[in-house]
Amino acid sequence: MSGVTSPEGFVAAGVACGIKASGDLDLSLVATDDGRPVVAAAVFTSNRATAGPVNVSRAHLAATSGRAAAVVLNSGCANAATGAVGDADAERMCALVAAHLGCAADEVLVCSTGLIGYYLPMAAVESGIPHLVAACRPDGGPAAAHAIMTTDTVPKEVSVTVDGYTVGGMAKGAAMLAPDMATMLAVLTTDAVADPGLLRGQLREAVAASFNALVVDGCTSTNDTVIVLANGRSGRPLGTAALVDACTQLAEQMAADAEGATKVARIRVHGAASDDDARRAARKVAESQLVQCSLFGADPYWGRIISELGSSGAAFEPGLVSISYGPVEVCREGIAAEHDAAAVAEHLAGRYVDITADLGLGDGRAAMLFTDLTPGYIDENMRTS
Amino acid sequence: MSGVTSPEGFVAAGVACGIKASGDLDLSLVATDDGRPVVAAAVFTSNRATAGPVNVSRAHLAATSGRAAAVVLNSGCANAATGAVGDADAERMCALVAAHLGCAADEVLVCSTGLIGYYLPMAAVESGIPHLVAACRPDGGPAAAHAIMTTDTVPKEVSVTVDGYTVGGMAKGAAMLAPDMATMLAVLTTDAVADPGLLRGQLREAVAASFNALVVDGCTSTNDTVIVLANGRSGRPLGTAALVDACTQLAEQMAADAEGATKVARIRVHGAASDDDARRAARKVAESQLVQCSLFGADPYWGRIISELGSSGAAFEPGLVSISYGPVEVCREGIAAEHDAAAVAEHLAGRYVDITADLGLGDGRAAMLFTDLTPGYIDENMRTS
Repeated sequence: MSGVTSPEGFVAAGVACGIKASGDLDLSLVATDDGRPVVAAAVFTSNRATAGPVNVSRAHLAATSGRAAAVVLNSGCANAATGAVGDADAERMCALVAAHLGCAADEVLVCSTGLIGYYLPMAAVESGIPHLVAACRPDGGPAAAHAIMTTDTVPKEVSVTVDGYTVGGMAKGAAMLAPDMATMLAVLTTDAVADPGLLRGQLREAVAASFNALVVDGCTSTNDTVIVLANGRSGRPLGTAALVDACTQLAEQMAADAEGATKVARIRVHGAASDDDARRAARKVAESQLVQCSLFGADPYWGRIISELGSSGAAFEPGLVSISYGPVEVCREGIAAEHDAAAVAEHLAGRYVDITADLGLGDGRAAMLFTDLTPGYIDENMRTS
Repeated sequence: MSGVTSPEGFVAAGVACGIKASGDLDLSLVATDDGRPVVAAAVFTSNRATAGPVNVSRAHLAATSGRAAAVVLNSGCANAATGAVGDADAERMCALVAAHLGCAADEVLVCSTGLIGYYLPMAAVESGIPHLVAACRPDGGPAAAHAIMTTDTVPKEVSVTVDGYTVGGMAKGAAMLAPDMATMLAVLTTDAVADPGLLRGQLREAVAASFNALVVDGCTSTNDTVIVLANGRSGRPLGTAALVDACTQLAEQMAADAEGATKVARIRVHGAASDDDARRAARKVAESQLVQCSLFGADPYWGRIISELGSSGAAFEPGLVSISYGPVEVCREGIAAEHDAAAVAEHLAGRYVDITADLGLGDGRAAMLFTDLTPGYIDENMRTS
């Protein structure tokens, strides 16, 4: 078993209902195997232009005080910027799934991903849902993960087993990835016992350490959602570390599959005046188009790193800063350090690049994962229609 | 007469001293024709990793209470991330110019632009300065503007005559352009009478309306400086509008010459809850890599615009938003509006694109100039060495 069906007691499916003109899988379901609700929590986009499915899922979790029996997801259309019609369509998706599953409509959560500004083709969705529910199986994780892909080139799944329980998950996302989430959806499942009062906090912590520490292009989408369902079947209490681990593995898969990217980099900031300052500085570097271009060109020009650190808003003393590529220090006390240029070139030539900046001010630290900016990214994003 | 030598009483020159290996002009001077100080003011980068020349110019203006006789500038090396050596080199540039001009060292201001992390080749600079001062002429504006170019493909000059006085100027900048300035230098001259107590405020206002309303890549450099010298020779008082006009013309020339750009766009946000909110929303759209890619592809996908507006932090009600390309409204009350797709395609095919967003909330408004993100930008920035 892999992905969302790896923990005991969950079923899943992915079908093609015709939202995507290509005929690819576009409708996905994750559900409890008995159709009964379990403890659930979610983290949603910080974008104020929230899509219909975000509005509906948020309302359902509030109505049930954090319980859900299923999550229905579609790719090929974001159902965003669709007003009251979009909200009604998202509600209808939940109601149809609930009718076939035998639970209440507000025990179903919903996610959509794809283009903004288009209504869902509801005839296709309505005819697809009975097949989707009928297709649910204990080994349906891979099909469900496949059916939420948009520009992803590979499905993203995870399974973490610790302390007698399992956390499974699936995700999609290859651009519009940024701190505070992005066009990304993730559903996590676990047979651990979750404390209903703590689960949302555990999920927020896991999201902060994983999806929110990943930058592809600094954009935050209208639809971002991370949902966790915990059925307690293992009898073992859910540890936050397992959630963090599962989310981190999914975030790393996203970075590796980022649109047009040829490299994955991690910027670590140490010695900041505070963790917040370190995060601000790391994020400024990760979001910099110039740094991203340098990464694509394997260029050792650290001037762009120090310039971004200096303009991040974090407390900063130029004369205290050091910067390293991999193990090689290229800037010490704010000026060029003698170093082995061949060793830097070798590190930058690889697919994974490590950049470390020490601000020399305090104990604050943070890390951010990001990718290079390439002609392939532009090619993928210059036209949507 | 054009550029910085268009007002009465200023001389300028540009020479090649050998900082640039190519042998191109790399040393530039703007001075009063009698070598005597006049009223001066400057606005510097908000980057905390300030370059030596920024530190020195700031100190000189403080020491003279806002008077200067000359500005010396070099291209080919930013003299940034160079520590105490960098500060001393910048001081030495001022002292050498002052010695040949016959003024005090702190009556000379200094600017550098080029790569970060390298020391100035002072032997070249020292041998060049006597030639530079000797070359100063009342028609030297174009040579001075030429000598500050880096990746610029054309020099940028302006001359505005109103109310019996003239404001002249030159600038450089083709990337790392963002609100709060960027790798850009500008020197303005005028024969109007400036009130020493008001000039800095007038300059800040002009910078806010021009250079700080321009985004190329969202990066803010270590060296940004805008300086104005006012000799009062016309006997007419300096109006802020003339400064705004001159700076705006220079900013538009920068946008037109932005690295790799094929299009220039203006995003206007109306109906925001405040001017600050409007600025925040306009800036988020202008800085969006996805919007910049759409612009390159002439893609009419307004979903990216509404998504950026929603994640800008500005007050936002999805159901009240309208978006237009040129004169054509494509989104009304937050959802797709029936429109003439051919008219939108025609507008987007042009070199200048106008995007208007009405948030429907209040009277706040702002505009931001930006450019498209292209393979040419990546090509230009993937390697510096």
